[in-house]
Amino acid sequence: MAQPRPDISIGDPAALLDTPVLVVDLDVFEANLQRMADFAAAKGIRLRPHGKTHKCSAIGRRQMVLGAAGLCCQKVSEAEAFVAGGIADVLVTNEVLAPRKLERLARLTAQARIGICVDSLLGLDRLIGATEHAARPIDAYLELDVGAARCGVVEIGDAQALVERIAAAPGLSFGGIQAYHGGAQHLRTPAEREAAIAFASGRARDLVAALAQRGIATPVVTGAGTGTFPIEAASGVYNEIQPGSYIFMDRDYGDNQWSAEIPPFGNSLFVLTEVISRREDFAVVDAGLKAQSLDSGFPVIAGRPDLRYDGPSDEHGTIRGANLPRLTERLALVPGHCDPTVNLYDWIVGIRDGMVAEIWPVDARGALI
Amino acid sequence: MAQPRPDISIGDPAALLDTPVLVVDLDVFEANLQRMADFAAAKGIRLRPHGKTHKCSAIGRRQMVLGAAGLCCQKVSEAEAFVAGGIADVLVTNEVLAPRKLERLARLTAQARIGICVDSLLGLDRLIGATEHAARPIDAYLELDVGAARCGVVEIGDAQALVERIAAAPGLSFGGIQAYHGGAQHLRTPAEREAAIAFASGRARDLVAALAQRGIATPVVTGAGTGTFPIEAASGVYNEIQPGSYIFMDRDYGDNQWSAEIPPFGNSLFVLTEVISRREDFAVVDAGLKAQSLDSGFPVIAGRPDLRYDGPSDEHGTIRGANLPRLTERLALVPGHCDPTVNLYDWIVGIRDGMVAEIWPVDARGALI
Repeated sequence: MAQPRPDISIGDPAALLDTPVLVVDLDVFEANLQRMADFAAAKGIRLRPHGKTHKCSAIGRRQMVLGAAGLCCQKVSEAEAFVAGGIADVLVTNEVLAPRKLERLARLTAQARIGICVDSLLGLDRLIGATEHAARPIDAYLELDVGAARCGVVEIGDAQALVERIAAAPGLSFGGIQAYHGGAQHLRTPAEREAAIAFASGRARDLVAALAQRGIATPVVTGAGTGTFPIEAASGVYNEIQPGSYIFMDRDYGDNQWSAEIPPFGNSLFVLTEVISRREDFAVVDAGLKAQSLDSGFPVIAGRPDLRYDGPSDEHGTIRGANLPRLTERLALVPGHCDPTVNLYDWIVGIRDGMVAEIWPVDARGALI
Repeated sequence: MAQPRPDISIGDPAALLDTPVLVVDLDVFEANLQRMADFAAAKGIRLRPHGKTHKCSAIGRRQMVLGAAGLCCQKVSEAEAFVAGGIADVLVTNEVLAPRKLERLARLTAQARIGICVDSLLGLDRLIGATEHAARPIDAYLELDVGAARCGVVEIGDAQALVERIAAAPGLSFGGIQAYHGGAQHLRTPAEREAAIAFASGRARDLVAALAQRGIATPVVTGAGTGTFPIEAASGVYNEIQPGSYIFMDRDYGDNQWSAEIPPFGNSLFVLTEVISRREDFAVVDAGLKAQSLDSGFPVIAGRPDLRYDGPSDEHGTIRGANLPRLTERLALVPGHCDPTVNLYDWIVGIRDGMVAEIWPVDARGALI
């Protein structure tokens, strides 16, 4: 069940927050949002940020105000939360086959422009079946495998046949091509990422050409993440980018080598934690596996390169290093992976100048279906 | 925020559940509960199951009905959820130093018997300070390091001094010794676990003896988990055990080698997931990092040793192996680690004979503070 709103008021010192708590440095966060919006505007490319990172319609609304074309999400229940939160254009960048979920998706068209991906005939037929519940056409995107070996159609001919079926379905409109290469985002060197996205762009270009030969125009080629978006933007093929993590960043993205072309995004997301037990050679903090996702490795400790986090258990972490923090001292952890960490919290607290300035509900937290 | 109750009725086929969804096989689950209750009764030892595993007062009430002395939890907010759910005796097996949390804990004494651990003079003084908000004495447990190198006092003399201070504090009663060895639970061989608990028991015995010399009786020596509880029960030192995971089990506990002495607990907890994309050589399911915690490794697939789960991303998992499942086919994942997986869900669905029989709210989900 949801946890109550943090027991704190706007304007209170952040030091009064109970820990562990998920906080955002608003100055860094807002600069991140602005830099990406400026990048998209300068390149003349549509920006559709991925909402799976924040699951928070308050943040989505800020992205829309800065010019985003809409939001992405991965689940119908996320789309429902974003539409309820006032987002007028939502693309589910994922396959959904369950008829009840597709009905719910179709019903959202009464309030917003809705898109979804397909990569199978069965999925497309089920989507067509759900359009009877829709108030207006659903944008169907063909997901193309562009090298990530996850979802997506492999054969250009198969993709073309599905798009022709989309184009012929009265309840659907052809939204475009979903060409996201998830596996490329954390390739550590710019050269590796460039090679991966060159392959992805080539695949998308081939499908656009095949469709053009059949008289089908592709309105949008969309994809890209925080690790690669300048490459897609320069490809001449993509006209929409879907970065998500740029708003927060995390330790894993911090481990990438960045080229000069990527705007300098900063870590804005932190788990504040407090020392609850202290030994001569280590300290124990109150943030463990339930306060952060460790799938991409351990967090680093903001501003304290002399300390390291290890030895996590469900509700504890161990801090080792020089100049150990004293009992009740606080540390700011930079999560290893922002998306699943945010999904553990019902609230994000925005901090500016050491004071609580925002308290945002994570309204799509736990939205799995 | 909390997700809505699953859109299903008691008596409906489980096959109608939207995925991913957390389900419990009630026959296995109930047998697990009964076996542990029988074990404790046969050994004449108090059973205080750990609620951090389930975070669900509906399950806690079942444990109480079967004779549990109370529940354990790790956070004040978990204790609040359990007390609100009707649990009359809750022990926070953790250190809490924040004065606001200690005030909340003290207020719970109006409704339930409440215990908490201390391992520092600062923590104890803050706890004493909070007793002015208590309706009756709080049970203060001295946490002793018994080899796990996490929280707990190391020197017997220091522990004794803290207990003397507890005994002298009007708002506290001395609950006993918290002597949990977390690191021993997943040592793979019985011999390794026996050696670790022999050390732990010796530490607890030394403190009991030192306190007795000062005229202080130790009401309870408590600890143990699913991996070691028969060893503590046979130690002659512990008179209370705190297992949690036995109700669900998980892949990580499945990797332990078990001695004949431990009752055969079965996997009762599963993440049901559906194939949403299919290739010739792999299938993609709708359960990724946000549907299960991978901190202890990947899940196994119930009843399908020919398949393996790998390549997870936020909302996807890849299935490889022989006889790949077809599009929309369902698989039951046995989570790598049950506790942080349960913490991702707002609801647990109990299934019997293929039908939905229970829908329990995870009322302490996300309870971090």
